[in-house]
Amino acid sequence: MAAEYPQALESLIDELGRLPGIGKRTAERLAMNMVEWDAEDLRELGNRIASLRDLVKHCTECGNLADGERCRVCTNPNRERTTICVVEQARQIPVIEKCGRFGGVYHVLGGRLSPLEGIEPDDLNIEQLFKRIEEEGVQEIILSTSSDVEGEATAAYLAHELQERFELTVSRIASGIPVGADLSYADSATMAMALDSRRKM
Amino acid sequence: MAAEYPQALESLIDELGRLPGIGKRTAERLAMNMVEWDAEDLRELGNRIASLRDLVKHCTECGNLADGERCRVCTNPNRERTTICVVEQARQIPVIEKCGRFGGVYHVLGGRLSPLEGIEPDDLNIEQLFKRIEEEGVQEIILSTSSDVEGEATAAYLAHELQERFELTVSRIASGIPVGADLSYADSATMAMALDSRRKM
Repeated sequence: MAAEYPQALESLIDELGRLPGIGKRTAERLAMNMVEWDAEDLRELGNRIASLRDLVKHCTECGNLADGERCRVCTNPNRERTTICVVEQARQIPVIEKCGRFGGVYHVLGGRLSPLEGIEPDDLNIEQLFKRIEEEGVQEIILSTSSDVEGEATAAYLAHELQERFELTVSRIASGIPVGADLSYADSATMAMALDSRRKM
Repeated sequence: MAAEYPQALESLIDELGRLPGIGKRTAERLAMNMVEWDAEDLRELGNRIASLRDLVKHCTECGNLADGERCRVCTNPNRERTTICVVEQARQIPVIEKCGRFGGVYHVLGGRLSPLEGIEPDDLNIEQLFKRIEEEGVQEIILSTSSDVEGEATAAYLAHELQERFELTVSRIASGIPVGADLSYADSATMAMALDSRRKM
């Protein structure tokens, strides 16, 4: 049997299928929907995707995604520059921004230590962090790497290096039972962490 | 708090959110993933979307999506041109092609009768169907409109018109319990249809 879609659609389906969580069937559904859009709307969406890397830059200060030289957090005069929240990737910053609890600035490492993948301290944006701490009188570093093996190892390494070099508070975001989650479904590692990190009431 | 994403990303998230089944959170996840793609890959995907309407045409014969003048089904010499399967939309054709049971050709109505939405027989591609039947000696019309109210009404209308005008077999795809489905979850309308359409074993 011949292929089911015209060539341009087949290619679009293949490309959409590279997106996270988009399998072959979802990609087909999206492509078949797009084909019914106005030509004008398709051109707008297409051009925006095509020029995405030209339009979205990385903040020269912290590595966050930015419209221009510096990101919205770094250019905001109301953010406290003495507290830096360290994350692995720029995509994790919106998660923290949305919770509305953090008024400091960020620093993007650009990855995490992973001996298996050959990612060592020199591959991460650590020197720039040290430079910012020296220049801006930073008082607290919040290590917000993921709470998996590589994320914890990266946090442990950074905590050690920071405390060797500077006089400042180094903190780590809490691990524990997600808010609203039923305890019955917690895995043992999370449950152990929640017990170890218990706080007085 | 300032918006969480650079302007170009916010716009991309809004536009992706117009796709079926893509909510705000999924759109954010897709956009944040795209921002990490190679500029080259982004340009390829973007250009393909922008030019989709120029590249994907409608078959002048049956209305299916096509690379050029005529679609892959109509240009395939192995398809029987004496059996036409009538569907509402071109996007339904791949569903039928994939099941591998149909060797005839298609006809896309471009919608279905809906008095509520003001869609009447003249708004559908019915004249062209009559013309094809006359010119090609068609022997069977399989009505594959959806099995909801409008789809059934469209099938009933077409069956009547076709039998008035031509000497041919008019059939309707079966409604019933989906293959692999547990009978416990069948709705009453489907169950009734499955009983009414029972076949001797």
